Amino acid sequence: MTGRPASPDDLTLTFENPRAERIKKVAQLAGRSARSRAGQFLVEGPQGVREAVACAPARVRDIYVTADALARHRDVVADALAAELWVHLATDAVVQAISSDAQGIVAVVQTSGDSLDDVLAQQPRLVAVLSNVRDPGNAGTVIRAADAAGAQAVILAGESVDITNPKVVRSTAGSLFHLPIVRAPLADAVAALHDAGITVLAADGSGDAELGGEGAADEDIAVPTAWVFGNEAWGLTADELALADLVVRIPIYGRAESLNLATAASVCLYASARAQRA
Amino acid sequence: MTGRPASPDDLTLTFENPRAERIKKVAQLAGRSARSRAGQFLVEGPQGVREAVACAPARVRDIYVTADALARHRDVVADALAAELWVHLATDAVVQAISSDAQGIVAVVQTSGDSLDDVLAQQPRLVAVLSNVRDPGNAGTVIRAADAAGAQAVILAGESVDITNPKVVRSTAGSLFHLPIVRAPLADAVAALHDAGITVLAADGSGDAELGGEGAADEDIAVPTAWVFGNEAWGLTADELALADLVVRIPIYGRAESLNLATAASVCLYASARAQRA
Repeated sequence: MTGRPASPDDLTLTFENPRAERIKKVAQLAGRSARSRAGQFLVEGPQGVREAVACAPARVRDIYVTADALARHRDVVADALAAELWVHLATDAVVQAISSDAQGIVAVVQTSGDSLDDVLAQQPRLVAVLSNVRDPGNAGTVIRAADAAGAQAVILAGESVDITNPKVVRSTAGSLFHLPIVRAPLADAVAALHDAGITVLAADGSGDAELGGEGAADEDIAVPTAWVFGNEAWGLTADELALADLVVRIPIYGRAESLNLATAASVCLYASARAQRA
Repeated sequence: MTGRPASPDDLTLTFENPRAERIKKVAQLAGRSARSRAGQFLVEGPQGVREAVACAPARVRDIYVTADALARHRDVVADALAAELWVHLATDAVVQAISSDAQGIVAVVQTSGDSLDDVLAQQPRLVAVLSNVRDPGNAGTVIRAADAAGAQAVILAGESVDITNPKVVRSTAGSLFHLPIVRAPLADAVAALHDAGITVLAADGSGDAELGGEGAADEDIAVPTAWVFGNEAWGLTADELALADLVVRIPIYGRAESLNLATAASVCLYASARAQRA
């Protein structure tokens, strides 16, 4: 094994053949079964790679970058080299073969090993739980909003989308590396949250309590809280709702029937963030 | 012209030929130039058609429905007939030729004739302004959130997406018919909003004031307010920001760089809704 280059200037072209076995294997990480077997996934584009390098360098296995992208995102590559990560200069065809959404730079990252117990041992005060959220863009947007609102963890329950799906990774805009995201059945997650002293609120239009009103006013939601958000089409089932300490609805002041999942989640999470800091 | 049927049971099959000139013309409304020429657009699917019939019946020109969709959404058709609208029973092939996203029912609706002056004459207390919002899904989601938060109008400025684009129409989930949506250059809109005594707040990560903090606390934003939201990728330009009375940032408590457009808009609009009702 040769020494790693210390600076972006020292990189030499390593991968030229988009049909090389290694490149084919990396490209296969677009598929769920390959990701699951390898325990690795792809992070496409400069923003995601930057956040992976900055926040989870120990999980970054390899970075593939084109000469053009290297010129545009020299800081990302310099940070990666400073962290002693493997950066491979590759042709446009090679990076394109790995992912058509890479914008010239893509990282292979190891799946997180966080468990629900690890997460709750940190005594989080704000947690987002996604139950049966199927759409990758929705899940990623909620994770990004949870990060912005200062949530310390996200739990994916039920048949929620695979967090290492490239579309989810992209739509988190890097938040994937900012807070732990773990998977657990909803009933187990709620039991563990309760054991950790965390109040479980389900966000649903059928809620008895209105956000900001009696039972869900600032003073009520200032406690450590986990918000449960349901499927984008059908919301939460009666069984799921029954697990929560309280079902909370967002007030609808106009004539819309409801908010969409990501906007509803943002309103709830920011209400908690505000109440917890009041 | 024969009499209109009074009940869904009286409907007989009217359109069987997906290649009929009339059906071709309706299908062309998927394109912007045809919509602009005709002053009409398509509303696809039961939810949108229901809201058009309920909230803007005078603008509904025709409804095309398959036998299956009629059975599933009998209430929508009954309401349309009660409002003396033209409902045409058509074959699956005909409705499919009009739109592949119709779910069996599609309406041809006249473009709204609302003007900025009409809207401001109603003395709205909460307005959402979208400047250069290009993505149809984003625009629709913000319109839906504005409706939910009780905004009384939406203004589309700059190169924002065409509101009659089928993807925008779908993603508003009917809110398109709940509040007036008008188009105006941003500088004209801001001048008119000021003349109407409405404070103009720009939502931007560069803001001097933090939402909920000094200058943008509940007591500050309880006044009649218009929020300006910028392009999904680059936000608001310096020129756009300079038009606002105050630039307000949403607090970021975690490590996310920002919120996405629709989630940011929801947090701002609900903050105003709450403050105005406190």
